[in-house]
Amino acid sequence: MNEWKNYLIKHQDQFISELLEFLRIPSVSGLSEHKRDVMTAAEWVEKRMKTAGIESVRIIPTDGHPVVFGEWHHAAGKPTVLIYGHFDTMPGEPFDLWDNPPFEPEIRDDRIYARGATDDKGNMFIPLLVAEAMLKTSGILPVNLKFLFEGQEEIGSPQLPSFIMTNKDMLACDIVLCADGGQWEEDQPALILGTKGLAEIQIDVQGPDHDLHSGVYGGTIANPIHALAKILDSMHDEDGRVTIDGFYNKVRPLTDVEREQIERIPFNETEYLNKTGAKSLYGEVGFNTYERSGARPTLEVNGIIGGFNGEGIKTILPSSARAKISCRLVPDQNPSEIADLVLTHVDKVVPAGVKVQAYKGDGGPANPYLVPASEVGMSIAASVLEDVYNKKPYHVREGGTIPVNALFLEYLHAYTIVFSFGLQDERQHSPNEFFRLSSFDLGQKAYGILLNRLGKELTKEGVREQK
Amino acid sequence: MNEWKNYLIKHQDQFISELLEFLRIPSVSGLSEHKRDVMTAAEWVEKRMKTAGIESVRIIPTDGHPVVFGEWHHAAGKPTVLIYGHFDTMPGEPFDLWDNPPFEPEIRDDRIYARGATDDKGNMFIPLLVAEAMLKTSGILPVNLKFLFEGQEEIGSPQLPSFIMTNKDMLACDIVLCADGGQWEEDQPALILGTKGLAEIQIDVQGPDHDLHSGVYGGTIANPIHALAKILDSMHDEDGRVTIDGFYNKVRPLTDVEREQIERIPFNETEYLNKTGAKSLYGEVGFNTYERSGARPTLEVNGIIGGFNGEGIKTILPSSARAKISCRLVPDQNPSEIADLVLTHVDKVVPAGVKVQAYKGDGGPANPYLVPASEVGMSIAASVLEDVYNKKPYHVREGGTIPVNALFLEYLHAYTIVFSFGLQDERQHSPNEFFRLSSFDLGQKAYGILLNRLGKELTKEGVREQK
Repeated sequence: MNEWKNYLIKHQDQFISELLEFLRIPSVSGLSEHKRDVMTAAEWVEKRMKTAGIESVRIIPTDGHPVVFGEWHHAAGKPTVLIYGHFDTMPGEPFDLWDNPPFEPEIRDDRIYARGATDDKGNMFIPLLVAEAMLKTSGILPVNLKFLFEGQEEIGSPQLPSFIMTNKDMLACDIVLCADGGQWEEDQPALILGTKGLAEIQIDVQGPDHDLHSGVYGGTIANPIHALAKILDSMHDEDGRVTIDGFYNKVRPLTDVEREQIERIPFNETEYLNKTGAKSLYGEVGFNTYERSGARPTLEVNGIIGGFNGEGIKTILPSSARAKISCRLVPDQNPSEIADLVLTHVDKVVPAGVKVQAYKGDGGPANPYLVPASEVGMSIAASVLEDVYNKKPYHVREGGTIPVNALFLEYLHAYTIVFSFGLQDERQHSPNEFFRLSSFDLGQKAYGILLNRLGKELTKEGVREQK
Repeated sequence: MNEWKNYLIKHQDQFISELLEFLRIPSVSGLSEHKRDVMTAAEWVEKRMKTAGIESVRIIPTDGHPVVFGEWHHAAGKPTVLIYGHFDTMPGEPFDLWDNPPFEPEIRDDRIYARGATDDKGNMFIPLLVAEAMLKTSGILPVNLKFLFEGQEEIGSPQLPSFIMTNKDMLACDIVLCADGGQWEEDQPALILGTKGLAEIQIDVQGPDHDLHSGVYGGTIANPIHALAKILDSMHDEDGRVTIDGFYNKVRPLTDVEREQIERIPFNETEYLNKTGAKSLYGEVGFNTYERSGARPTLEVNGIIGGFNGEGIKTILPSSARAKISCRLVPDQNPSEIADLVLTHVDKVVPAGVKVQAYKGDGGPANPYLVPASEVGMSIAASVLEDVYNKKPYHVREGGTIPVNALFLEYLHAYTIVFSFGLQDERQHSPNEFFRLSSFDLGQKAYGILLNRLGKELTKEGVREQK
């Protein structure tokens, strides 16, 4: 029954060159000029799923970018597993910081360098190849399988909630495997108990209606950059706490058990600083780095712009300034409520003399998510990772956002096990993003074992009883 | 003896099309890709001065952009007048806010729209045409004349101090006429008693060494945009005062006479707000708008940038953020000292976790400048303006910076009369900059009368005694 493994080994070179082909499609969901490229990626996925032997494969349009769905449903009496991933990517900018252009993948030192290599094309491709290997070698799968690949995860999956809600029957399943996420280190597995929610806010500050001469008008008319600096600086206190009224009201306090679980994960400050290039740690007083990242809500300004920023100087009093903000949320914070609190705060602190428009971002709000450590699927996944890595996985709470986790729980009543093989140093969202070929290989083995074990050990009733 | 007037009238169409030609040269001194264009503008000026009959015309290189010098020195016993202007311009950005491209001038409603139209190509061209008119019609000028046109006023004239210092003899004069500046309104003349000094500072804040995922790292590493917002917000208090330690120490308090002089100039708040598009007035408590603009030092952030500012969102903790600042100064503030005070302040308020580099801008520091209202040349200029406009000029203190005023006083011991015909609504440094053809015409008449009157009334000794 291990023929699937041999199939994977035999076809590895082909799979790698297929992944490179996939990575060459600049499927940036956040930039309108790449809209057609996202569709091209969907078409690529559709074709590849059909080749793998998946049935009923189809591209389904949404009001935003499309999803690709397919299934194999011939394992009578077995549980149904929904596998999720995304074929869209972050933008490639800033291009000049890449060693190779972001959409011209290169393999160096057994790593594939490209935008989307680890997040998420490399990872989403893995379970598809495993399914193909099983189908081509034995003709059957150990579970009923559904694939849901989407094209707008990187902009917050705005249409996915309504898509899942209106397609509950098509997507019905006992458990979800999320092929977007990662392991702890090359030799240390991890299971994700929680992911953060996301709320986005943009603040536009308008001063004069055109750039003014800073000599003639400076000091007589409010400068929108000064106003924006005041607004942004009002959002944190000296203790690293967010000062938005009500921001922490619905945050579930960390239990002793949760703090112990986090405490068990080794933290190396020097390594963390080397990896980020930061000068020192920072954050909310009273919490350690993992707690700050995984279990405490945060507010970060993602971008700011105003006035003249070219070479040399331009002595103007600028007409406008703008900032983009994202908040990462934990249970039981609600993204829309939090965004409203931020807007209320902005209204309260706006200095005189400028007009401010603050509004929620376009991305669909993503809810925070937390799965009980005792959940059955989680135990099975833990056993698979222990076998593959020869180490017990850590149970971690992630700072990142996987909006669908919360959606699947809400609409399909299924918990999600993040089962994916990216690593934290792979520069997700940054220049020189990469994916290890070793992870690509290991991930295939792990997925094969997991599907087999879920087929044996997971009963539909058992899973349902856990909820 | 009014033949010069007829000459000017007769050749007006030709002069306008020559000005359009001059404006087509994108002589942006602040952008390195326009370096050659600045030289082209110098060559255009050199050629045009020779045509006008000016002698010893030559382009003189500096370590930055060149200057163009020429003279006519055959008015024995008459005072020597140095006329100053600049042939460089501000950048054209943001291009999309222009109705015509900034370096493709268009005449609409008797106005020339182009970058540099009023600041300063249109204005610097005027005295040259007047000299030509006098030389071509009578063969002589009523005074000895020197022209000094420079190519880097818009970046703060970095090489001009050393140029003037090392060319004192060549530039020696009794009075300077500055063809860069303006009148009050179309029907109201003004003389400028003072111009502000300029100090420039740039602040670079570095957080992590690459953009980080805002979920994974947000709240655990200091965000350079937050740090920069804190630094910038610390620079003004609620009363609009600059909070830099020592910033006001050397500011000459406004005398009662000076405040009365300013009080005499009508101020229309509604008009001011309509002109700027600002929501309300703003500024240092205890001073009115003209005092804030002309007689009080200011600090303005000219530009800020950091993180992702494209379409959509990119949830990053950015690696860096940057701000450009300029301070406008009044006597007896020293630009270099003030810049040092700002740097010291930045050092003091830098929050933990980021690296900050703050440094003085590349532009040459410009000293603040103030001329006594009783100065003889000023009285003569006032009488000319009164004759031309049928109105007494206001005596104003300008918020803008004309670095050379202070330099001429320091090195040539000559006061500068700003005698120029731009108007405040002509969008200097902004999109859709323009120059009125009526000002172009009026300026020529006024310059002709002024040169004649200086030749008659200004004795070298008289001028020198005033200092």
